Amino acid sequence: MDMDAETDLEHTGNGEERVGILISSRSSSTTTGSGSGIQEPLLVKNSRLNTTSQHAIVGANVCPIESLDYEIFENDIFKQDWRSRAKAEIIQYVCLKWTFALLIGLGTGLAAFFSTIGVENIAGFKLNITNDLMLNQKFRQAFAVFAGCNMILAIAAAALCAYIAPAAAGSGIPEVKAYLNGIDAPSILATRTLFVKIFGSIFGVAAGFVVGKEGPMVHTGACIANLLGQGGSTKYGLTWKGFRQFKNDRDRRDLITCGAAAGVAGAFRAPVGGVLFALEEAASWWRSALLWRTFFTTAVVAVVLKCFTEYCKDEKCGLFGEGGLIMFEVNYAKPSYSIPDILVVIFLGVVGGLLGSLYNYLVDKVLRVYSVINEKGPIFKIILVMIISFLTSCCSFGVPWLSKCMPCPPQAGDQCPTVGRSGHYKNFQCPPNHYNDLASLFFTTNDDAIRNLFIAGTDKRFLLSSLLIFFVAIYFLGIITYGIAIPSGLFIPVILAGASYGRVAGSLLSPFTVLDVGLFALLGAASFLGGTMRMTVSLCVILLELTNNLLMLPLVMLVLLISKSVADCFNKGVYDQIVEMKGLPYLEAHAEPYMRQLAAGDVVSSPLFTFCGIEKVGNIVHTLKVTRHNGFPVIDGPPFSDGAELCGLVLRYHLLVVLKHKVFMTNQRGSSSILKKLSADEFGKPGAGKGIMLEELEISEEEMEMYVDLHPITNRSSYTVLETTSLAKAAILFRELGLRHLLVVPKTLGGPPVVGILTRHDLMAEHVLGLYPHCVPERKQSYYQDTQSRL
Amino acid sequence: MDMDAETDLEHTGNGEERVGILISSRSSSTTTGSGSGIQEPLLVKNSRLNTTSQHAIVGANVCPIESLDYEIFENDIFKQDWRSRAKAEIIQYVCLKWTFALLIGLGTGLAAFFSTIGVENIAGFKLNITNDLMLNQKFRQAFAVFAGCNMILAIAAAALCAYIAPAAAGSGIPEVKAYLNGIDAPSILATRTLFVKIFGSIFGVAAGFVVGKEGPMVHTGACIANLLGQGGSTKYGLTWKGFRQFKNDRDRRDLITCGAAAGVAGAFRAPVGGVLFALEEAASWWRSALLWRTFFTTAVVAVVLKCFTEYCKDEKCGLFGEGGLIMFEVNYAKPSYSIPDILVVIFLGVVGGLLGSLYNYLVDKVLRVYSVINEKGPIFKIILVMIISFLTSCCSFGVPWLSKCMPCPPQAGDQCPTVGRSGHYKNFQCPPNHYNDLASLFFTTNDDAIRNLFIAGTDKRFLLSSLLIFFVAIYFLGIITYGIAIPSGLFIPVILAGASYGRVAGSLLSPFTVLDVGLFALLGAASFLGGTMRMTVSLCVILLELTNNLLMLPLVMLVLLISKSVADCFNKGVYDQIVEMKGLPYLEAHAEPYMRQLAAGDVVSSPLFTFCGIEKVGNIVHTLKVTRHNGFPVIDGPPFSDGAELCGLVLRYHLLVVLKHKVFMTNQRGSSSILKKLSADEFGKPGAGKGIMLEELEISEEEMEMYVDLHPITNRSSYTVLETTSLAKAAILFRELGLRHLLVVPKTLGGPPVVGILTRHDLMAEHVLGLYPHCVPERKQSYYQDTQSRL
Repeated sequence: MDMDAETDLEHTGNGEERVGILISSRSSSTTTGSGSGIQEPLLVKNSRLNTTSQHAIVGANVCPIESLDYEIFENDIFKQDWRSRAKAEIIQYVCLKWTFALLIGLGTGLAAFFSTIGVENIAGFKLNITNDLMLNQKFRQAFAVFAGCNMILAIAAAALCAYIAPAAAGSGIPEVKAYLNGIDAPSILATRTLFVKIFGSIFGVAAGFVVGKEGPMVHTGACIANLLGQGGSTKYGLTWKGFRQFKNDRDRRDLITCGAAAGVAGAFRAPVGGVLFALEEAASWWRSALLWRTFFTTAVVAVVLKCFTEYCKDEKCGLFGEGGLIMFEVNYAKPSYSIPDILVVIFLGVVGGLLGSLYNYLVDKVLRVYSVINEKGPIFKIILVMIISFLTSCCSFGVPWLSKCMPCPPQAGDQCPTVGRSGHYKNFQCPPNHYNDLASLFFTTNDDAIRNLFIAGTDKRFLLSSLLIFFVAIYFLGIITYGIAIPSGLFIPVILAGASYGRVAGSLLSPFTVLDVGLFALLGAASFLGGTMRMTVSLCVILLELTNNLLMLPLVMLVLLISKSVADCFNKGVYDQIVEMKGLPYLEAHAEPYMRQLAAGDVVSSPLFTFCGIEKVGNIVHTLKVTRHNGFPVIDGPPFSDGAELCGLVLRYHLLVVLKHKVFMTNQRGSSSILKKLSADEFGKPGAGKGIMLEELEISEEEMEMYVDLHPITNRSSYTVLETTSLAKAAILFRELGLRHLLVVPKTLGGPPVVGILTRHDLMAEHVLGLYPHCVPERKQSYYQDTQSRL
Repeated sequence: MDMDAETDLEHTGNGEERVGILISSRSSSTTTGSGSGIQEPLLVKNSRLNTTSQHAIVGANVCPIESLDYEIFENDIFKQDWRSRAKAEIIQYVCLKWTFALLIGLGTGLAAFFSTIGVENIAGFKLNITNDLMLNQKFRQAFAVFAGCNMILAIAAAALCAYIAPAAAGSGIPEVKAYLNGIDAPSILATRTLFVKIFGSIFGVAAGFVVGKEGPMVHTGACIANLLGQGGSTKYGLTWKGFRQFKNDRDRRDLITCGAAAGVAGAFRAPVGGVLFALEEAASWWRSALLWRTFFTTAVVAVVLKCFTEYCKDEKCGLFGEGGLIMFEVNYAKPSYSIPDILVVIFLGVVGGLLGSLYNYLVDKVLRVYSVINEKGPIFKIILVMIISFLTSCCSFGVPWLSKCMPCPPQAGDQCPTVGRSGHYKNFQCPPNHYNDLASLFFTTNDDAIRNLFIAGTDKRFLLSSLLIFFVAIYFLGIITYGIAIPSGLFIPVILAGASYGRVAGSLLSPFTVLDVGLFALLGAASFLGGTMRMTVSLCVILLELTNNLLMLPLVMLVLLISKSVADCFNKGVYDQIVEMKGLPYLEAHAEPYMRQLAAGDVVSSPLFTFCGIEKVGNIVHTLKVTRHNGFPVIDGPPFSDGAELCGLVLRYHLLVVLKHKVFMTNQRGSSSILKKLSADEFGKPGAGKGIMLEELEISEEEMEMYVDLHPITNRSSYTVLETTSLAKAAILFRELGLRHLLVVPKTLGGPPVVGILTRHDLMAEHVLGLYPHCVPERKQSYYQDTQSRL
């Protein structure tokens, strides 16, 4: 991975300037972090010094992004270990895995419940006060209270995000997705991110922003999983010694996949949808065993939520009362549709796909503008949040005045506004027994607005003009809200915009179809979700679990497929777009066609730093100092073998452990005592920021002249490819096995036994096409040039 | 792959006897095929000659099982090809993929609908005649008609299976699963298998056997997909030239995954369940793009079925009238459960898991007995089917006499027996307005019996004694029916047994719980499915889609998890068990622990046959004649390079193509003309039995002295591992990338550039533990010895 920093120094020939960049990238990242979503691309793009590769600093220790290593660990240490541990500890390991799954489920379920209660109570309290004032015709005071409450909540959320955990801003799904692809961005799963995510999300949603708490819940689940996987947080004194076995990237990846699934399960109360979301959108690697564990986790979440909703039935939880396990239950008449209906639905899907891809395009543009503002400092972040909050308050309070008062339908009963309690119909400025249809959508929580839109058999409830106004307002509010420095989910804005679009379309198309407008709202939401997020099966199941109606299944599937296909013609899914914009080096599952024309040896970078099987301490310390490489090939020389022979790969961290414990030998012929002195636990991956620093090691001059036998800590089974192997095949090997380093060995004899190391960065399109511009396929040439010039 | 046959000859030292065995295995397989499920293990186990490996003949051409190659094809031919094709043809390829998905969906939907109509009409006709006779008190005639009809249908199904397509017997899911793992058993997906599967399944289910048509539908879907992927069937004159692009294992695997998903979607009318089934149970490799394509296929199936059920609403389809897209719709009261209910459900899950694993154990035993009978010849197969058919008829007709007549509940209305039409309550021998509860379960189709068991709010409808009798009878009938020579699914027997178990448990436990007995039946079915098939998410979704009730979700998840966990303590899932018993070399996703102690070079077998880069025709023909290897390393010698240097791997079939088209050169220095003379299409994988036979090639003495330049057809990017790489890592590489051959290269210089080739067989536990018996872990030692002695 970290070959790269070094390599680029060589390529550009001006190392010092380069180091300057690396350091500045580090210092800026500590102040702004990953801030409000994207304020600063973590990879310094468009740097004039780095002409060969846009991803050059990935994986270097000075860079905040590290690459994860999912290769099963196979050093002699661990082999040894496996034999001695075989029985009791393996059982303990399996039990712990399941305990963790249980704990993640419990934790995420609690977090989901807590944030739901928080939002419902804060937002309900705010709306109740405002409503009372409205009833007394004190409109100005009502607005002041409404906008004031929103502003205070918004500032609270923004301050948390700006000062405590900038990584908590935004949805969090792109970051989790990148983590599961093997990219460890800094503090993305830290404990403080977890707390800010939960509270920031509660404040943000309660502040009336057009954001959801669903994306943040996924991030919350992942953070909880990471907290457990790290064996707690040493910073806050929460540690469990027994949980050390999970100190490797592979187990942590599995836990975080469970966490992501639990997050969706908690957010939508959709356990099966959660599993599928983790599978389809979040995870880059999947195993059958993981399916089962994820399923267990989401089942726990479902049970936790079920228990709490049972408990809260009798208004024990404040204003959170209604709502069982189905969030937006609908009861459309048994749909009986014919060809014209299906044509109408196809049309709905096509337009939904177009609007969805436009949504992505606009979100991208807005994010780029916001990133400039957010970069200026925390105070600018907060100001931006305040502006958007005021705009949202004005919209929510101002737009309903455009609509007329309508008499309540006689059958509405309790739903129609009565004093002191707000039902589905809001009276806003209207006299009793009348309601304002726009206020029923705007002047309520997002969840209630969705419920109102989905409801069946209420064709006349909303005027077409009101729906149209609501759709346009929500569409653009959603776009300008994402990217400000609060935890903000994209699901709810998209569902809101989609449902109002669907209801508009349903009203307009009612002459051609017999389908209910409520069903149209559902299908519209599906088309928007398909058009922006580009998921299929998981969205389908989530929608089913949200609405508890399986009879719409064929229609929902149809709409999702059409809208995704249409939108895919224009741009990427919104999460992929954000991952790309953040500069995270995401590895796609497939190899690009141009890779078939290149060989692995073509993209590999030199020079290579290697160690001998028994190496001088001084050499190791020196090499570690001058390079930031994470892996070094170990080569056995003539005294031990006939010629130069590849022994394997040794990791930087393992060298640091050995140096720290000073397991040295006085001469080259001594037998190694690493296995006796150090246990496998010592080599476990440390938590973020807890590793051994080279600078802290104190090694005397005398010790510098001693030797270390690297064989026991060398991974003798690292994967290799011949230098003539096609790059496409090397990329597939790299991606499928979740590697961090791939050794490239020479084809001809006589030279050194290793040609170079392929890392994640070497497979990025920017790097490869930078080296070989003629490989850019014609149809992409213009696109690529565009991208280059845009950056 | 086929290194192995040769190797074992060397190991055992008596080649001739061995060849005898190979030939006898071939001849016996042509007569009995893969027969009634397992009559003859396709791999000759327990042969005294083959002491080193039980899987030795896998992949050899003489052996009926071939291994598939999922490595992306990367020869120069195809690289060349990619450049010239780049535009129009790639678009055509993508369009074709989607067209295929559409066609598979349409085909499977039609097949599912056709078989449902067939079963409903034939079985309904049979039951109606019998009912009329019963009403007239002609009991003996009724039995004669009933048993006679069953017998005729059973013989028809058995004859089809025994004489036309033995591979169509059994569920088919294990074979599809093995295919998707890379094992190409003979004629498993042939066109005749498809027809026999559809008709045999209709006859078998209509004959009243305790079998389902769900497993066979999966196989049917896979066969339809394969038929399309082969570009039709040349045998029956159905070919499409345009479909040639799919003549590779990878694309065919994707199609067959879609087919399996479509099968489940069609069988259960559960589109999302189908996708998940393909993902969780069937597929060994999965890609995100595949998820989408599978989803599209099942959506098409859902639409097709929806259209047909709409069409059939007005009794246009004979006796098939009722039933929309939800097969077993239930409407339990909103479940509100507390701790004691959950404890009861946990108990249900534990016992269900135990009974499920007992089911697997008994099925295994019965299959072993049946395999002996079925091996004797087709006539024995038919006799066995007749015996079981008679037994089933006796049971269905005889057992209901044990129950008393009960008066119809007044609210039953039409459901209670009236003359000429059968409702949910059967009166059997009872007077009008009375019903026989056992007959309502036994004397009906399996689908109706399940519907009766699942139905809510009917606590008193079935006597506890009747349910107990039904449970015991169905449990054992299901076990003795699987393995006879008819297409027989396992889902329905397991659901039937589970639902009756659940209802029994619900009746017994009613003092402790408030849950409905119908809900208990559903949970019982879930526990049995979890206990036998060991799936989780897919079963959960299938059950939800079957019953259209999401409120039970947490309980269903809980039961599935518990029963799977309990059953996993005792044995494998039923499909894995059958795969193992059939001797199919299934590669697990994980490496076994003992593999970590071995290196790749330890298990590789010699001698190795290699070719030079420019090889004499005579040498090639000779080598192809004396070995059955499928892949040969190509090594460049001194005239072309400094030393012996690995060029790549050439496939047997590609050599045959070149020999057939006689693209020879007169001397070693000529330039190759393979790329000019042959197009990439020529190298596409042929359909089963359509390849070029070495014996049919006529090569003159003069041509034998000519040369072939192998470089253009050599795969220069074949994956390699060092001989010192741990076997575990080599196995993971092999499995994750879907390889057929893995080259093992030496670590030390000077020797030949290839040490050997790893194939599927080299990674089988039987082979590895045969070579290194000390590696068998202690806890498995006894199990392994058991297995060895049992075979």
